[in-house]
Amino acid sequence: MHFKSCHLFQELSELQASRLLEISIRMPIEKDQWLFREGDEAGVFYVLEKGAVELFTLVNDKFELPIAMLNISGSAFGLAALVQPFTYNVSARCAEAGEVFEIERIALEGLVRDDHQLGCTIMSNLARHLFNRLRETRRELKVHFKSLFLLTH
Amino acid sequence: MHFKSCHLFQELSELQASRLLEISIRMPIEKDQWLFREGDEAGVFYVLEKGAVELFTLVNDKFELPIAMLNISGSAFGLAALVQPFTYNVSARCAEAGEVFEIERIALEGLVRDDHQLGCTIMSNLARHLFNRLRETRRELKVHFKSLFLLTH
Repeated sequence: MHFKSCHLFQELSELQASRLLEISIRMPIEKDQWLFREGDEAGVFYVLEKGAVELFTLVNDKFELPIAMLNISGSAFGLAALVQPFTYNVSARCAEAGEVFEIERIALEGLVRDDHQLGCTIMSNLARHLFNRLRETRRELKVHFKSLFLLTH
Repeated sequence: MHFKSCHLFQELSELQASRLLEISIRMPIEKDQWLFREGDEAGVFYVLEKGAVELFTLVNDKFELPIAMLNISGSAFGLAALVQPFTYNVSARCAEAGEVFEIERIALEGLVRDDHQLGCTIMSNLARHLFNRLRETRRELKVHFKSLFLLTH
């Protein structure tokens, strides 16, 4: 994977992408391994290199509401590490063994202090990503809204 | 309203806030006036000065799904003007006459070219805002999910 294939890193220069790569740590992940849990402090975000990671949120003790299954190289997750108050809002579990890049929030903040353009590009890409997720989630909400309406009328 | 009370402009310097004010246009809004419609090209974003604005999305020809009722001075909306591909994903209609500040995307892009730190701050604030909206929307989805489960089991 080239780092610039990650949706957060689009439009970065080669130099900026290589600086990001320098602060990232490549780690193996095993099937069923938890990368983080909803409510944990978010100190790290991840870029998937290979394998698959499932994101979900707990509806109650019994039900997990699936949010996304990431299996495309370059997918970023753990994005709560980029947004105050830095608390994971979903859980992430490895669905298929592989590898991830870990990037520590503190290390990224150091890069951004020296290069605000890098920060502006990453945060613009993040906003676009969250905007799309929000649109998709609202679309799901509309489907449920219609189903509930049909069931109750 | 001081511009820095707007959630998008938090942590800007006084100078940065005054530059933003310079490119903004104060406009009156009348009850029932449409500010923009879902699907329109997003060339402008807004900061509410006074009055109230309702955001909603259409489920079908008959039903509007309410997204938010904005009535706090400093509330920003039309945020699609800050995110590619710059298309409004909700509609906005004035619920109570008042005033808004309009900021053109093109004018803001000009400011950001000269001051990447300003861009980084605004986009970080936007990402935090979208992240919170996403969390709230997922919470609604969980409520619908539980209701549907109870109705069908």
